Amino acid sequence: MHVPAEGLPERVTIYEVGARDGLQNEKNVVPVEVKVEFLDRLAGAGLAVLEATSFVHPKWVPQLADAADLLDRLDRRDGVDYPVLVPNERGLDRALDAGVQHIAIFASATETFARKNLNRTLDEQFAMFSPVVKRARGEGLRVRAYVSMAFGDPWEGAVAPAQVAAVGRRLIDMGCWQFSLGDTIGTGTPGHAEAVIDACVAAGLPVDVLAVHFHDTYGQALANTLAALRRGVTTVDASAGGLGGCPYAESATGNLATEDLVWMLDGLGIAHGADLDKLVETSTWMAERLGRPSPSRVVRALAG
Amino acid sequence: MHVPAEGLPERVTIYEVGARDGLQNEKNVVPVEVKVEFLDRLAGAGLAVLEATSFVHPKWVPQLADAADLLDRLDRRDGVDYPVLVPNERGLDRALDAGVQHIAIFASATETFARKNLNRTLDEQFAMFSPVVKRARGEGLRVRAYVSMAFGDPWEGAVAPAQVAAVGRRLIDMGCWQFSLGDTIGTGTPGHAEAVIDACVAAGLPVDVLAVHFHDTYGQALANTLAALRRGVTTVDASAGGLGGCPYAESATGNLATEDLVWMLDGLGIAHGADLDKLVETSTWMAERLGRPSPSRVVRALAG
Repeated sequence: MHVPAEGLPERVTIYEVGARDGLQNEKNVVPVEVKVEFLDRLAGAGLAVLEATSFVHPKWVPQLADAADLLDRLDRRDGVDYPVLVPNERGLDRALDAGVQHIAIFASATETFARKNLNRTLDEQFAMFSPVVKRARGEGLRVRAYVSMAFGDPWEGAVAPAQVAAVGRRLIDMGCWQFSLGDTIGTGTPGHAEAVIDACVAAGLPVDVLAVHFHDTYGQALANTLAALRRGVTTVDASAGGLGGCPYAESATGNLATEDLVWMLDGLGIAHGADLDKLVETSTWMAERLGRPSPSRVVRALAG
Repeated sequence: MHVPAEGLPERVTIYEVGARDGLQNEKNVVPVEVKVEFLDRLAGAGLAVLEATSFVHPKWVPQLADAADLLDRLDRRDGVDYPVLVPNERGLDRALDAGVQHIAIFASATETFARKNLNRTLDEQFAMFSPVVKRARGEGLRVRAYVSMAFGDPWEGAVAPAQVAAVGRRLIDMGCWQFSLGDTIGTGTPGHAEAVIDACVAAGLPVDVLAVHFHDTYGQALANTLAALRRGVTTVDASAGGLGGCPYAESATGNLATEDLVWMLDGLGIAHGADLDKLVETSTWMAERLGRPSPSRVVRALAG
């Protein structure tokens, strides 16, 4: 039953992260031909934005060491956007070689995570990103940013919304077109989601440069998404089948499952372009490849 | 981090259904002493309303055939309410014998489910409940009602909110003090939750006679709960550890997990009286008794 609710957007862009954020957290390396088929099936299911892979050094993310090969094999469809994660200038070189048109950089909202993940201070991370963003823009690429640990940080606890907004503001000022508020450890709740979005708007940012990236570690991802939609956010990151975990959170559950999001959007009559049956089919197929059931409630309910 | 959101209640009553709705759906019968300890641990975790068992005929629900024995063994605490499901006059006799002070009846929002579950038409179910409610009230008992299939019905599809409200209205007029809107198959989404609540209010019912009972079959339970809270509902049914499924939905996942609800309420700064750590401890203990992990995201994240 389609029952719209008040104050929600008419259309949402699903930013699908399963092939990158999902598979980079898999213990086993998935064969490149499986990744290619996965992305192709996701495109076939109507998803128009598919983060395809990452040019992070293979030493850190061996699961995605095949990034160049993957992009070479992938039949990139018209009308589908295939952003790729790029950590630094070397990664940008590789992305440019592969003909990528949209990259994503991975920033931290907190001092501790910047040091642990990037070996930089919170401030120094911008100096690292700046030449990457500048050169990418000069080459005509779009640059998205992740703001990770935007809600809670395993070392620092709750993160001040104003601090998150300040990081986002610098990324936009630097030339990023969008940033995604990452609840990397999944501790956020709906009022907190509203507060972070409100802080970004108070920092002078239009709501349409915001995306949300909720993890379902504590079961809050969809409720937080609903709160974000009510605040006018129209880009939602999700992972087909709920693929992916977080190495910094002690839990098997990770990203918001695309299917669970689509079920809610369908119920609310919000357009998104994806075909739920094909998504469930794809995630069921992928779960077989990975040898374990999808954590998505919808996939479990419908895969029968 | 506690971040209140606008338009939400300050306090919520958690109506804990794990011992009844959860355990009645277990394949194996749980020993009575485990049930007693489960209820006692839940009371110790601060839950003030615990649906304890059911006087449905053991032929239909053998898992709860020990209802009288359970209530006899249970040390009922002051300040804790232990409602018991009662299907008919025979069940009421047994509940009265056991010194129960609060019963719940199980009505259907749809014609088909009334026939399948109660062997009555939608109208006839009221004739069946009427003498039960009347006599229970005469004995000084409170009577809660469930309105099952209040969102979707596996045979009829989506259920009209006005029909649900009409069923609820008749139950309140009959003498029930509260009814719980049951999304028995878990298909509802937040706008639908709002529409059903609005229909009840439009039927002249004050919002405080409403409770919500969401199943997480499609991952929607917490988002729907958030929508219901925004509409002023202050009683939420949940099941410790997410115990319980629905025999009419093809999925392993069932009730909203109490812990996932508590995580959200804590984040929103909404008072509820329960202690999350003790709940997680209880559900972990129960999962060991049942021999499988809890489907609650919070229990999985914190039990590690």
